[in-house]
Amino acid sequence: MYNSYLEHSEWSIIESGFKKENHMSSESIFSLGNGIFGQRGNFEEDFSGDKLDGNYVGGIFFPDKTKVGWWKVGYPNYFAKTVNCPSWIRLSIKLDGELLDLNKVKVNSYRKELNMKDGVLRRTFECELINGKKIKVEAERFISLKIQEVGMLRYTITSLNSDCDITIKSFIDENVVNVDSNWNEQFLKTEKIIQNDNSTFIKSKVLKTDFEICSFSKTRILSEKNELSFSSKNDTSHNLNYKLEFNKKLTIEKIGGYVSNFSYSDDLLKKSSELINKCSEIGYEDLLQSQIELWEDIWKKSDIIIDGDVKAQQGIRFNIFQLNQTYMGQNPNLNVGPKGFTGEKYGGGTYWDTEAYCFPFYLSTKNSDVAKNLLIYRFNQLEKAILNAEKLGLNHGAALYPMVTVNGEECHNEWEITFEEIHRNISMVMAIKKYIDYTNDFDYMLNMGIEIVVAIARFWAQRVSFSNKHKKFVILGVTGPNEYENNVNNNWYTNYGASWCLRYALKNLEIINESNNEKFNSFNFENGELDFWKKVTENMYYPFSEEHNLYMQDDGFEDKELIHVDEIPKRERPLNQNWSWDKILRSPYIKQGDVVQGIYYFEDEFSKEFIKNHFEFYEKYTVHESSLSASIHSVVASHVNQIDKSYKYFLRSSRLDLDDYNKEIEQGLHITSMAGSWIALVEGFGGFKVSKDKITINPRIPKEWKSYQFNIFYNNQIINFKVEEDSILINAENIKELNIENLSSKIISYE
Amino acid sequence: MYNSYLEHSEWSIIESGFKKENHMSSESIFSLGNGIFGQRGNFEEDFSGDKLDGNYVGGIFFPDKTKVGWWKVGYPNYFAKTVNCPSWIRLSIKLDGELLDLNKVKVNSYRKELNMKDGVLRRTFECELINGKKIKVEAERFISLKIQEVGMLRYTITSLNSDCDITIKSFIDENVVNVDSNWNEQFLKTEKIIQNDNSTFIKSKVLKTDFEICSFSKTRILSEKNELSFSSKNDTSHNLNYKLEFNKKLTIEKIGGYVSNFSYSDDLLKKSSELINKCSEIGYEDLLQSQIELWEDIWKKSDIIIDGDVKAQQGIRFNIFQLNQTYMGQNPNLNVGPKGFTGEKYGGGTYWDTEAYCFPFYLSTKNSDVAKNLLIYRFNQLEKAILNAEKLGLNHGAALYPMVTVNGEECHNEWEITFEEIHRNISMVMAIKKYIDYTNDFDYMLNMGIEIVVAIARFWAQRVSFSNKHKKFVILGVTGPNEYENNVNNNWYTNYGASWCLRYALKNLEIINESNNEKFNSFNFENGELDFWKKVTENMYYPFSEEHNLYMQDDGFEDKELIHVDEIPKRERPLNQNWSWDKILRSPYIKQGDVVQGIYYFEDEFSKEFIKNHFEFYEKYTVHESSLSASIHSVVASHVNQIDKSYKYFLRSSRLDLDDYNKEIEQGLHITSMAGSWIALVEGFGGFKVSKDKITINPRIPKEWKSYQFNIFYNNQIINFKVEEDSILINAENIKELNIENLSSKIISYE
Repeated sequence: MYNSYLEHSEWSIIESGFKKENHMSSESIFSLGNGIFGQRGNFEEDFSGDKLDGNYVGGIFFPDKTKVGWWKVGYPNYFAKTVNCPSWIRLSIKLDGELLDLNKVKVNSYRKELNMKDGVLRRTFECELINGKKIKVEAERFISLKIQEVGMLRYTITSLNSDCDITIKSFIDENVVNVDSNWNEQFLKTEKIIQNDNSTFIKSKVLKTDFEICSFSKTRILSEKNELSFSSKNDTSHNLNYKLEFNKKLTIEKIGGYVSNFSYSDDLLKKSSELINKCSEIGYEDLLQSQIELWEDIWKKSDIIIDGDVKAQQGIRFNIFQLNQTYMGQNPNLNVGPKGFTGEKYGGGTYWDTEAYCFPFYLSTKNSDVAKNLLIYRFNQLEKAILNAEKLGLNHGAALYPMVTVNGEECHNEWEITFEEIHRNISMVMAIKKYIDYTNDFDYMLNMGIEIVVAIARFWAQRVSFSNKHKKFVILGVTGPNEYENNVNNNWYTNYGASWCLRYALKNLEIINESNNEKFNSFNFENGELDFWKKVTENMYYPFSEEHNLYMQDDGFEDKELIHVDEIPKRERPLNQNWSWDKILRSPYIKQGDVVQGIYYFEDEFSKEFIKNHFEFYEKYTVHESSLSASIHSVVASHVNQIDKSYKYFLRSSRLDLDDYNKEIEQGLHITSMAGSWIALVEGFGGFKVSKDKITINPRIPKEWKSYQFNIFYNNQIINFKVEEDSILINAENIKELNIENLSSKIISYE
Repeated sequence: MYNSYLEHSEWSIIESGFKKENHMSSESIFSLGNGIFGQRGNFEEDFSGDKLDGNYVGGIFFPDKTKVGWWKVGYPNYFAKTVNCPSWIRLSIKLDGELLDLNKVKVNSYRKELNMKDGVLRRTFECELINGKKIKVEAERFISLKIQEVGMLRYTITSLNSDCDITIKSFIDENVVNVDSNWNEQFLKTEKIIQNDNSTFIKSKVLKTDFEICSFSKTRILSEKNELSFSSKNDTSHNLNYKLEFNKKLTIEKIGGYVSNFSYSDDLLKKSSELINKCSEIGYEDLLQSQIELWEDIWKKSDIIIDGDVKAQQGIRFNIFQLNQTYMGQNPNLNVGPKGFTGEKYGGGTYWDTEAYCFPFYLSTKNSDVAKNLLIYRFNQLEKAILNAEKLGLNHGAALYPMVTVNGEECHNEWEITFEEIHRNISMVMAIKKYIDYTNDFDYMLNMGIEIVVAIARFWAQRVSFSNKHKKFVILGVTGPNEYENNVNNNWYTNYGASWCLRYALKNLEIINESNNEKFNSFNFENGELDFWKKVTENMYYPFSEEHNLYMQDDGFEDKELIHVDEIPKRERPLNQNWSWDKILRSPYIKQGDVVQGIYYFEDEFSKEFIKNHFEFYEKYTVHESSLSASIHSVVASHVNQIDKSYKYFLRSSRLDLDDYNKEIEQGLHITSMAGSWIALVEGFGGFKVSKDKITINPRIPKEWKSYQFNIFYNNQIINFKVEEDSILINAENIKELNIENLSSKIISYE
């Protein structure tokens, strides 16, 4: 644990006492969202210290240009960057003329608490201004699950030592700039500001695009007795001067949010106004009550309970909470970005993380239409994936899904990633397989899935080449999941996964050919095309080291100076913040599991000994500087019965952000890797797997835990698995409908 | 020849007849410059077709940002882009109210001629406007070698069919945008405009920098009888309405140019005004006369005469002319950019091209202080090269020169180039060796050269690693001169060159240790340091193929599908405009000689058979899509007596731009590769070499030529070598001072 200033608590994230150096980290940690939009845990009042005010709306991006370096054929036209939107929560507060700014005043007590059970953020502090004024602030806010375009804020100030003249300025801050803009240029241009007695509407355009967005807010200010009226200025603010008496409260309530033409075709100003009216009618208290109820529903299907280990409990709940804040699954045009709505790194686009990490979580904790929506997202983009492969010189319906996308187009342009991290195609097929195994929804396979599976098989069949030297098929010039190697030949994971995709395609085509010849014929397979696929799967080259008696991660791995990770001085970690890229590239160090990722995916195809030997070899060179690494290591460690190690990795994964392992939390949370923690617990410790109407489990339990429970939503019922040292207790509404196989020696019982 | 619309002529580049689709190519071809600033061959009058108005001033750049993709430790903070400056030549001409625009009028005759002997560009055309008005225009301009901040323009209009109302607007166009800006944003901000009766001064600031530049121009307008007075508007223009009589001439003269704080510390406006006054005093005719005389001096030392082959003659003179337009050698703070002042690609920075290609040309055709200034440029930047290596994790004074620089700092950030094209260090040492061999200036070696040589040796000694597999030293993760391979291991050229650098350092240190122990000790060599260098040179790994019995370009080359270049369909060439980057990378195709570059550099160390076998093998996979490729192939082909092939490559190199081989000439000329043509003729055909007071020659002559002559400036005298089929004639002022060895069977005689 590198930076653990947060309290351990089962249902809450708690920061006690104020340290300004933690502020940007806390802004990330205390982020709120509802799958549609989200915001960092910014202060409402002014703060002159380091901060990143961040509000992000799903689907809205600025297309940045990249006329730097040499243009390469096949590069996308832009790199999408999620747009930092005007901040509706802002308040500027003066007390006897002095600005409230926690960077300047004396903070006597401070507590920030994110209640994950209810989805509500609360902050309470008492402070003394330079002018001697003492006040108490209680702030509460949430991003509504009920009305998904709005958030609610209630901010109460109490004067603690005397009467005081208070000035309140409530406004929308439109002077926000993306931290990842090139020269601090704004991505949004304000086109219209409308203001009335208590509301502000800012209509903006995202530069270089057709995106329009309306940011809105409504302010109420209440004394203990009654609602106060205030003046509006010719900017975006509403203002009040008020004599706050000693020991009295003043409360500011704000409704705020965004509508954009990504979701609405009608007049955005009108829509915003309607939303404000609707929320005003429902009222703060009722919206808060809905918030609590809707989160209760989410937790019913997805909660994990760990008995005896508060920090693990807090970690996994934080993961589940943030995953739900980022994606709720109702809209097949939205997806999960690696930082969700908590920061700007990675641009807000969709990566292979969704299929490789997030998919199992959504599949097992929500109605199956949520996982299906994730699959439909890619199905809808198949045409663009085929165009993408054509750009790279492939044809005949071959598809390469983009590495990063906001709309199906590739929008990342580092060639070693854009063109070479082609392994992402493997995860597209793997998600389909997992969905079919879980749901038996063969209609989906017939109508959508097989289109993707065939297009990807065609990609691999064209992307291999034949090596005269090896007399085998090789895959040259790739980057595997371990991005600390670029442009390597014969990445074992990629070669294995490519071959697996071809096998999976052949198997499903065989079924379809028997049951639906018309569908089969619709693919217009060339003469010998499927035979060639088979030939490739049977003659794929895998780099092997005689010396180590192991498959090598890729050609050339053996040429490196194979010094274990332990021997790197601590001050040089993480490598990506301390070593130059070329030094990283020529080192053997692995950013995230690569061979190990393959072992996780294709575990059934290897012996325990194979898994153990490869896992132990590569682990020695793995630095886990991708957030996605620890969880998969936890799973594989569980499966080779190295439970202590598995626990260590689980903790690292689940508390990665809370404890800031990789020293970068101020940039935002690692949302997609949070799903890895869920995998580590459910699939790793739990040994949970579904295939063809059967659930198998093989639970292990870390010695640190008395018991753990996970909920699964399967075949329209919630199943609760409770694992203790010697026993498994299963609770479900219709237990009889389930076919559960227990591979462990623990005694199973049903409730 | 792909696009040869230009006439063949010995001393001129001539475009006859106007085709608008060639306009941007012609803008590049007809570029003018004087080593300090330059401009594309733009039209003075309006042109509504595709064009790139371009004026560039040496040393002035905009630092572009690159917050796209993932930041890597060691990346530079900016990518420098040469700034497109306001265009001082601009005229807007209306005839009876209709704008003169060659994109719209009917052009009846058109001739554009760049006289390379005198350094003057002339354009004459007759056209008929839509309103029936017929006129003739004669435009003449040059960038002065005498007053290096200014250019001169004389533009004469004759009315051919009737009297007409002519409106002249003479102005500086400040609305220029870099074509390589990300979103058409300007890099320059106008800060002040001063205008008087006939002159305009625009003071601008380069955004995000401290660069200030003053663009200025003075206009005179003359009828056949007298000078006309005109009005100035509140912009940057001077305007005249005039009744031009039938068959009468109206002449506009402009003086224009730039001063910047890169060169001047005093008041730029004042300096500009002084320059205008000075040029006015001297007058157009006298400045033109100086231009002719100064170019005559240049040609005396550097001309090459080819008898019997106009296109080759034109090609090589174009090359020599452009090299001189780009760099004159007086200022050690300036250098040679790959596109000179003719376009924006490559950003205007300095590459290894200078040392590898341009250096021999300047060394042999100018006073030796010019070559020395090029070396001093790098010596002055040694400290930054050491910092650059430190950024990459090296220490103890190791230096890595930048791949692209404007001031010693690396300013390119594609990792495979920035961090991996480390072979550039070899050329730094090679230039020093060539300078010492040519001049015997061992003082330079002692005071400057050895500092660089040792720093680079220290770089290589740290950059190698030891492979347990091979029991040899390897160099992992590099990009060789062939940029169509990235991040390869054991690039033969790099490994060989690294070893050579260490040997060269050891040899020179041995001499210094004997002659100047104090200097030797100043390096504070560690115990065993020099022994380790020796060990590395003796145990370097070179990839070798048993099957081909040849050294491989790099590890993995043999794994590729080795299909010869001939078999690629013509429509797919050039590959970099038709193939995606990943397809190029996994192909065997070579952008420019790589092993062949090593053969050129280290020729003396290999047998003829070795050279021939390697040359013939790699040639089959070489696509010459770098402008730098053909010339070195020409040299090596000469040296293995494949003169027809050598001639073909020479023609390709010397006429690369005139014939637009790589279909990209509209972006600018390939200045640095032009020096390669000179190398191909002098070192290739001529077999010219200087070492230790001795000149060796070994001339061959292509069958297409009756004779060829090249001038060399050596030991303060001009030597003329004339080569015919069976004889060599040498003409020099002090022939007795020369020690010339003829390795050919041709009969040598002296004049």
